[in-house]
Amino acid sequence: MGEFGLVERLTARFAASTAPEPAVGPGDDAAVLAAPDGRVVATTDLLVDGRHFRRDWSTAEDVGRKAAAQNLADVAAMGAHPTGLLVGLAVPPDIQVAWLEALADGMRAECEPLGARVVGGDVVRCDTLTVAVTALGDLRGRDPVRRDGARPGDVVAYTGRLGWAAAGLAVLGRGFRSPVGVVAAHRRPEPPYAEGPRAAGLGATAMVDVSDGLVADLQHVAVASGVGIELDTARLELPAKLRDVGTALGIDPMTWVLAGGEDHALAATFPGASPPPEPWRVIGRVARGRGVVVDGSAYDAPGGWDHFR
Amino acid sequence: MGEFGLVERLTARFAASTAPEPAVGPGDDAAVLAAPDGRVVATTDLLVDGRHFRRDWSTAEDVGRKAAAQNLADVAAMGAHPTGLLVGLAVPPDIQVAWLEALADGMRAECEPLGARVVGGDVVRCDTLTVAVTALGDLRGRDPVRRDGARPGDVVAYTGRLGWAAAGLAVLGRGFRSPVGVVAAHRRPEPPYAEGPRAAGLGATAMVDVSDGLVADLQHVAVASGVGIELDTARLELPAKLRDVGTALGIDPMTWVLAGGEDHALAATFPGASPPPEPWRVIGRVARGRGVVVDGSAYDAPGGWDHFR
Repeated sequence: MGEFGLVERLTARFAASTAPEPAVGPGDDAAVLAAPDGRVVATTDLLVDGRHFRRDWSTAEDVGRKAAAQNLADVAAMGAHPTGLLVGLAVPPDIQVAWLEALADGMRAECEPLGARVVGGDVVRCDTLTVAVTALGDLRGRDPVRRDGARPGDVVAYTGRLGWAAAGLAVLGRGFRSPVGVVAAHRRPEPPYAEGPRAAGLGATAMVDVSDGLVADLQHVAVASGVGIELDTARLELPAKLRDVGTALGIDPMTWVLAGGEDHALAATFPGASPPPEPWRVIGRVARGRGVVVDGSAYDAPGGWDHFR
Repeated sequence: MGEFGLVERLTARFAASTAPEPAVGPGDDAAVLAAPDGRVVATTDLLVDGRHFRRDWSTAEDVGRKAAAQNLADVAAMGAHPTGLLVGLAVPPDIQVAWLEALADGMRAECEPLGARVVGGDVVRCDTLTVAVTALGDLRGRDPVRRDGARPGDVVAYTGRLGWAAAGLAVLGRGFRSPVGVVAAHRRPEPPYAEGPRAAGLGATAMVDVSDGLVADLQHVAVASGVGIELDTARLELPAKLRDVGTALGIDPMTWVLAGGEDHALAATFPGASPPPEPWRVIGRVARGRGVVVDGSAYDAPGGWDHFR
């Protein structure tokens, strides 16, 4: 099957979405999407086979969901609503068309509840299976929530899961396939997409998608904002499931919570006078200074995930 | 150098642009660009080392310019003005930082005269050097020019170069580095960006970026529009330079003009009553029927470039 045949097959999978159709979808030189705000939010990520996913650990649909999710979460972390994805696939000859179709299904499924669609893409040959995703979003009249807006006196809060994907990765790395809860979390993150725009509406002063690890990503906020961030680990949720897995593997589960990436929780700062309601959980405060302090000390465990490895 | 150090180095190269700054540039979860039209044009392409470029044939800056150009040309082919690029780089360990910086410089240089910028990206490790580019653009109130609007009675025209990049590739493939004109055309296409929006203003009924070859890309227009397209090769420009290279290599240079991709000329259809002015060149007409006919016959030379190989 050549380029055009494969593109046709994948386009058919994307077209099955019930999300609103773009003005111009796949099949032209470029797509045309609505951008009613008059600004467009845009982000891109690459996933490489064997580095960012393993085909023996994740199904094609898992990989599609994850590739979509990590980009859609970046859009949400700006306070925006995702509108569309563009997908570039670099495909070795041994990959089956059915695998690629399931990948496309995963992307479609992750976008659909958000009202977003895969609107365009490219397929090329390559020795290494690589998935390039670009997500676009709309701010609906609100200002973007950047990383540099945290101010002393703000509170620090998060929503979504922390440590689950890292625990799942640890389990898979030891050759196990269970507990299913953490393994599923590694395969298919569940970012709290709707809480991104909601946080913007609640007055969040800074926000990030937790992709590198809570401490590492808050460190980005601290540096960009020129502030210190003080975390109280006692206020972090440490679910029984993570404690159990930690005990079984002999790993302190708080390491996963503080340094595990890939769950795509959202972390944000809010004015101290108006802390956010549930499901947000306040875990610390913004102070003068520089960098993240955990329980009063510099954090010296592995700080997070370096994608460039 | 880790992920964050490299990202910082590349971001500095992109930041040197004199093009207008976006609302939010590199360094946050996502970029935020102006989309004053209320719609956004978006397209993505992958370039793989050894398939879409060769590092012994092209400099890093050449590759950066070409990767940017082929995406920017897709935006122009919708009748839109490019506004920004997102760049994903999958980088093997043996690639020097200086090479990547020069790649970034090439992208910046290609965008800058158009008022566009590289606004975001991602860097990951991979065994195969791969460049993923997404281009965004603004329609400035005009409707996009799609592939499906050609109607019987329209004229077919093109602007930009045809066959030059293919001649350059043929020269390089034989081990030569000259004539420099065609080799440079292969390394750095010069799409007629401004003619895309201009054609939209002139009433173009359909338009494509010639990336697969003139006949192949007009075939896409014919199929999408449900029409026939009749080309007269006598009306195509066949420059002396291409004739000379053809003679030297024993290749009919018209093959390059009809089937060579990668120059990123624009081909468009216009109402027969209002053919486009120079630099557009009318080369045929739209008729009832289906598919492209060249000088009255089906075209049976290689139809174009299959990127999936």
